[in-house]
Amino acid sequence: MEKRGCLYEGKAKRIYETDKPEVLWVEYKDDATAFNGVKKDVLTGKGRLNNEISSVIFSLLAREGIKSHFIERLSETEQLIRKVTIIPIEVVVRNIAAGSLVKRLGLTRGQRFDQPIVEFYYKDDELGDPLMNEEHIRVMGLATEDEVASLKEKALEVNEHLIELFKKIDVDLVDFKLEFGRDISGKVLLADEISPDTCRLWDSKTGDSFDKDLFRFGQGNLQEGYETILARLGGKS
Amino acid sequence: MEKRGCLYEGKAKRIYETDKPEVLWVEYKDDATAFNGVKKDVLTGKGRLNNEISSVIFSLLAREGIKSHFIERLSETEQLIRKVTIIPIEVVVRNIAAGSLVKRLGLTRGQRFDQPIVEFYYKDDELGDPLMNEEHIRVMGLATEDEVASLKEKALEVNEHLIELFKKIDVDLVDFKLEFGRDISGKVLLADEISPDTCRLWDSKTGDSFDKDLFRFGQGNLQEGYETILARLGGKS
Ligand SMILES: Nc1ncnc2c1ncn2[C@@H]1O[C@H](COP(=O)(O)OP(=O)(O)O)[C@@H](O)[C@H]1O
Ligand SMILES: Nc1ncnc2c1ncn2[C@@H]1O[C@H](COP(=O)(O)OP(=O)(O)O)[C@@H](O)[C@H]1O
Ligand SMILES: [Mg+2]
Ligand SMILES: [Mg+2]
Repeated sequence: MEKRGCLYEGKAKRIYETDKPEVLWVEYKDDATAFNGVKKDVLTGKGRLNNEISSVIFSLLAREGIKSHFIERLSETEQLIRKVTIIPIEVVVRNIAAGSLVKRLGLTRGQRFDQPIVEFYYKDDELGDPLMNEEHIRVMGLATEDEVASLKEKALEVNEHLIELFKKIDVDLVDFKLEFGRDISGKVLLADEISPDTCRLWDSKTGDSFDKDLFRFGQGNLQEGYETILARLGGKS
Repeated sequence: MEKRGCLYEGKAKRIYETDKPEVLWVEYKDDATAFNGVKKDVLTGKGRLNNEISSVIFSLLAREGIKSHFIERLSETEQLIRKVTIIPIEVVVRNIAAGSLVKRLGLTRGQRFDQPIVEFYYKDDELGDPLMNEEHIRVMGLATEDEVASLKEKALEVNEHLIELFKKIDVDLVDFKLEFGRDISGKVLLADEISPDTCRLWDSKTGDSFDKDLFRFGQGNLQEGYETILARLGGKS
């Protein structure tokens, strides 16, 4: 596979074209951003950790029958992925109250939900990724009704598998964000990344955070938390 | 009917008990508030206008078979209503993009939706009445799934009737907010008020606002706009 020109650079990754039109080359960056880019830093090793963790998770999900854009890990910081047209909806699944939800609705941090909550956010940095409902998605033409049903279903399926996966390594899956896209045939495919940048992960015993909250609230060493996750997942560390 | 002690005072109305436990006495106030109480004023005549308009609208809806808490108009500023336990969800129906939705999702003000949008907001002044989805309502225990379905259905029914009612008087119903409550038997009943404080109303020909936006953005005389609505509805002015 040959790496071609940079297609776009986001806050966490650089995406390149390859000699195959349906395949993209991703490079995970060391940039850390939070609060919609208001807090920024460069954290050496973060790109490697997220690439390794994301690769391990997508591989484990594939074994459970969950298809994603992930093709293969190329190097410490690089992956090959299937190209999709990203649906600009961030699908958030929550098992335990934390983060923006606690602030928005005045819930108690740590409250466990009987059933997971699914939320949709409009992926738009300028608007600050606002919460939206299914009727907003309809009038904005972001996804069809069937696609929305599929996003929800797939997100809940991923949740079931991730809960199990993390339970085995003594980690509580608090919440996470997924992105999906349409492949060339129009099918909805899980894309982007699943990493401590996009999940809230708490140590089942101590409650310690192993995720981006370490950076958001400066409560500890981000790389240490991410290393712990990678090590427990059995990945190279 | 005898007026007893004040049960509570809100931003727009004072609610009194009566000698009947299932009946309340409402007094509409002249207080105007916007942006969750940040902008405030006293506008002489506003209480009367909202009471008259709300009375006319609830009466017209009753004739169309839409039940509400409204019993009767008592005076220029007073009504009798059925007591309910308010469900702390503001149900918003939108036919045309305006207000917070335009800001939230970057839509074009004035865009007409093919089908109305229904939104739920958590009625909580301290939290700023945040948008919520049906799963938030579930985990917070604010309403049952059946009640949520009923809120949506009733709100859309009210919308159909209000669109027609306002069309006849050359007014476009842009959006509006409803509150519902549970009566003694637990049935969901339309409550609170329907007035230019809780609706966005635009002149069909000129596009002029006849609603609280006149106050929110200081673009004209609120009382004049509300008088126009009352006069066109054929109420006392
Ligand atoms: N399989 C894929 N095909 C095309 N684009 C993708 C794919 N997976 C992720 N992307 C997109 O790559 C971009 C770069 O990722 P990232 O740096 O995380 O961006 P952002 O700043 O939007 O979070 C994002 O817009 C993301 O949606
Ligand atoms: N039928 C009813 N029974 C009991 N309470 C009601 C009824 N209709 C409206 N209310 C409540 O009366 C209170 C006063 O109204 P208002 O001044 O508009 O309050 P707010 O400041 O919450 O907008 C509100 O909490 C409203 O929900
Ligand atoms: Mg991203
Ligand atoms: Mg009110």
